[in-house]
Amino acid sequence: MNNAMIAYILGSVLRIEGVLLLGPCAAAVYYGERVGWYYLCVAAFCEICGWILAYRKPDNQVFYLKEGCVATALSWLALSFFGGLPMYISGQIPGFVDSIFEAASGFTTTGATILCDVESLARATLLWRSMTHWVGGMGILVFLLAIVPLSGGSNMNIMRAESPGPSVGKLVPKVRHTARILYLIYIGLTVVELILLLCGGMSFFESINHAMATAGTGGFGVRNDSLASYTPYLQWVVTIFMILFGVNFNAYYFILFRQFRKAFGMEEVRYYLLIVLAATGIVFLSVRPSYMTSADGIRHAAFQVSSIISTTGFSTVDFDLWPQTARTILVLLMFIGACAGSTAGGMKVSRIVIAAKTVKKELAAYLHPKSIKKIRFEGKPVEHEVVRSINVYIIAYAVVFAVSVFLVSLNNCNLETNVTAVAATINNVGPGLAMVGPTLNYGHFSLFTKCVLIFDMIAGRLELFPLLMLFHPGIWREVGRSSRLQKLREKDRNNG
Amino acid sequence: MNNAMIAYILGSVLRIEGVLLLGPCAAAVYYGERVGWYYLCVAAFCEICGWILAYRKPDNQVFYLKEGCVATALSWLALSFFGGLPMYISGQIPGFVDSIFEAASGFTTTGATILCDVESLARATLLWRSMTHWVGGMGILVFLLAIVPLSGGSNMNIMRAESPGPSVGKLVPKVRHTARILYLIYIGLTVVELILLLCGGMSFFESINHAMATAGTGGFGVRNDSLASYTPYLQWVVTIFMILFGVNFNAYYFILFRQFRKAFGMEEVRYYLLIVLAATGIVFLSVRPSYMTSADGIRHAAFQVSSIISTTGFSTVDFDLWPQTARTILVLLMFIGACAGSTAGGMKVSRIVIAAKTVKKELAAYLHPKSIKKIRFEGKPVEHEVVRSINVYIIAYAVVFAVSVFLVSLNNCNLETNVTAVAATINNVGPGLAMVGPTLNYGHFSLFTKCVLIFDMIAGRLELFPLLMLFHPGIWREVGRSSRLQKLREKDRNNG
Repeated sequence: MNNAMIAYILGSVLRIEGVLLLGPCAAAVYYGERVGWYYLCVAAFCEICGWILAYRKPDNQVFYLKEGCVATALSWLALSFFGGLPMYISGQIPGFVDSIFEAASGFTTTGATILCDVESLARATLLWRSMTHWVGGMGILVFLLAIVPLSGGSNMNIMRAESPGPSVGKLVPKVRHTARILYLIYIGLTVVELILLLCGGMSFFESINHAMATAGTGGFGVRNDSLASYTPYLQWVVTIFMILFGVNFNAYYFILFRQFRKAFGMEEVRYYLLIVLAATGIVFLSVRPSYMTSADGIRHAAFQVSSIISTTGFSTVDFDLWPQTARTILVLLMFIGACAGSTAGGMKVSRIVIAAKTVKKELAAYLHPKSIKKIRFEGKPVEHEVVRSINVYIIAYAVVFAVSVFLVSLNNCNLETNVTAVAATINNVGPGLAMVGPTLNYGHFSLFTKCVLIFDMIAGRLELFPLLMLFHPGIWREVGRSSRLQKLREKDRNNG
Repeated sequence: MNNAMIAYILGSVLRIEGVLLLGPCAAAVYYGERVGWYYLCVAAFCEICGWILAYRKPDNQVFYLKEGCVATALSWLALSFFGGLPMYISGQIPGFVDSIFEAASGFTTTGATILCDVESLARATLLWRSMTHWVGGMGILVFLLAIVPLSGGSNMNIMRAESPGPSVGKLVPKVRHTARILYLIYIGLTVVELILLLCGGMSFFESINHAMATAGTGGFGVRNDSLASYTPYLQWVVTIFMILFGVNFNAYYFILFRQFRKAFGMEEVRYYLLIVLAATGIVFLSVRPSYMTSADGIRHAAFQVSSIISTTGFSTVDFDLWPQTARTILVLLMFIGACAGSTAGGMKVSRIVIAAKTVKKELAAYLHPKSIKKIRFEGKPVEHEVVRSINVYIIAYAVVFAVSVFLVSLNNCNLETNVTAVAATINNVGPGLAMVGPTLNYGHFSLFTKCVLIFDMIAGRLELFPLLMLFHPGIWREVGRSSRLQKLREKDRNNG
């Protein structure tokens, strides 16, 4: 295990977080808020820790998938820890675990909050919460890759650990350029949404917060009623951008380079839009009697469906009060999630489609046992390895889900609360149903449950394996052996 | 497709059902109940239909897996249909779909009922319900194999379609002998339970009903409160036999032939007993405060855990009122189910264990990408094909589960009711939580929902694929083509 390299990456991530923390500082200066000092202190603390960890770029940059996983998992834990610190020491969030929960929920783009009143927060804190969404959405290590040059395979192994989806595609031969292109598209779309929100009369502060929260498919709002009190125009803008940020970013890359046929021919995107349309239709039929006009019904249905499938978690109504059919559809959408290669959580449409195709193929194999046909996806045969990894992912997902539901059940909340709380966190959605519904929050859970849910959020964001790796005893044996080896080598050097 | 052979098997199954229906007739004669006539009529009807379908043994007995699946699926649908008829025409169950639901629930050993008062039923009907459990538990086609000689591979393809578990093991080289040995063990265990129940002072009629319902891991009782009003001794006897009937029958075969080391070394059985012990412990700790003595607490905990994991569905208390931790454990146990090669439903312990091992292997592969280690189970490396089929099964299971929950949600019952209703039927358990809890029943659902749940019960019992095959258009094309070919051939014969 290349411990030096892991420390270097961890240090670099902390230094980036330190810089990011200057964002809320600036907001605090602008709005004359004293909490800015706390953010500044933590920023400095991040820089110092980061500098210590990354003071020397290691000579040996050989970096395998295991190192990629460990570096990514530790980075995300560190991000959540340091991200929660300023909210805790400034007293904006009284509990220590609560503040880490809030930061983890931000970075993983979950948007589950333990706060019942966000309007009383300082603007600096509100901005910081939205910023965590924005950075977490595309991935902070992807950002690191875009700015720090690393040699050879190292890049790809980090990218693979942090990027969502069954297989990581490089848009261009160099990982670094891929990361840059992705960030450019991301910034572009965010700016377009910002402008459209400003056009609708939203204030600049609220617009930038909502644009970042939508872009990361996060879901932290700046008002207690999420988006309920905004105009239909603004709600529609957010609806459309929630859908757009759930689309595989490769599609935008193709559009950018005028490969329209490729962009609009993407199988995953078409299934995704089909699911959005079908779900909106069913939810609309189910909730229509609750609203005065069809326009209201369709707007709320489309907003909630987009919000849940893109795993954003904004709400315009209390969908916990909707009829059971609509509620059930929303719960099912939580698990599906949006496209791979987007900022959304969930299992991803591509995994669901490929999994469904394996079932179809199995039935065909009963009929014609000797035919050897490969599953096709996006016009290409799907490699055996991809199918296998999807299967293992689904099983690991089920295991983590079941264990989490049991651990959360120790709280003695009802089953619906527990199941949807785990579903909403592991899929990075945010609100669930019943006691974690859109008008309620996660504050009432015990500390232990909050820790379980923090684990679920990060596990969901990193697609399980990087975080599960930390619980594999073999990893720590390797880390220990490497550090002993390094010490021996240094001793030799000093003696020689 | 060998249509003639499918018809022959279907006919044979109906003829067996006709004979079985004489059981309730005999009970009706003994207790002087008039409903016996209805059972006699349906028995005759079954014999006539069966005789028409199976009047000539086909010359061509070549029989592939697809024919095995279709024959099995159609047999189970026919069993449920004809099994429900006497209850419907005798007026014991007023609704037509309800009576099919009750029969399907019986044959699939689910034990979910639409009746709120079983004590008012005729004894003939009570006996018939228990008999369906007993026959359905080991499988009626396995019974057919034990008595009807079929050539070569045909046997195995039927056995594979009906037997639960990821891979079908033949105990002895001949399928027919395997089927006979299994039935002998089954009868032996049932008789032992019957004797132990009689020793506890239960009446003969109730003992035979409970013995058959336990053996098939069914769960239909003869009293409205299931087993709540019996003595602790009787409850413990049933507890132990529920656990025993959830054990892989291969273990009993080994014990029978004095291969004790093999019997007690079975990995699946050891995991199964471990889960039972652990779950009982957790449930006991969770429900202890609700009961006067520890003895009561442990008895109810052990009974309910055994009842749910073996997918029997008897109850001694209303576990829907238990604390959330206990309820959650019970819901999780529903999905696990007992051992493959037992009469229980659910996913089966062996599938869960192998699936968990694939996740462990995946983590190890992150550490050492080049190591090629096969998963081991029961001391042998698991074939790639078995792992693949387990993965596909789990995915198909999730798809059927999600679609069913959506379809059931059209009822507007709460989510807990819908999810546990589907879980309790697809896993062949019986009672769920909330509105399908142990003191309530399935009678309040709409006809459409009942049809969905009938599908789930049969799909769960046949482990999905045989029933799903009926929805594959390719099957019906083949059936049509074969019947056209046969007609042409007959024409030729007549002309020639």
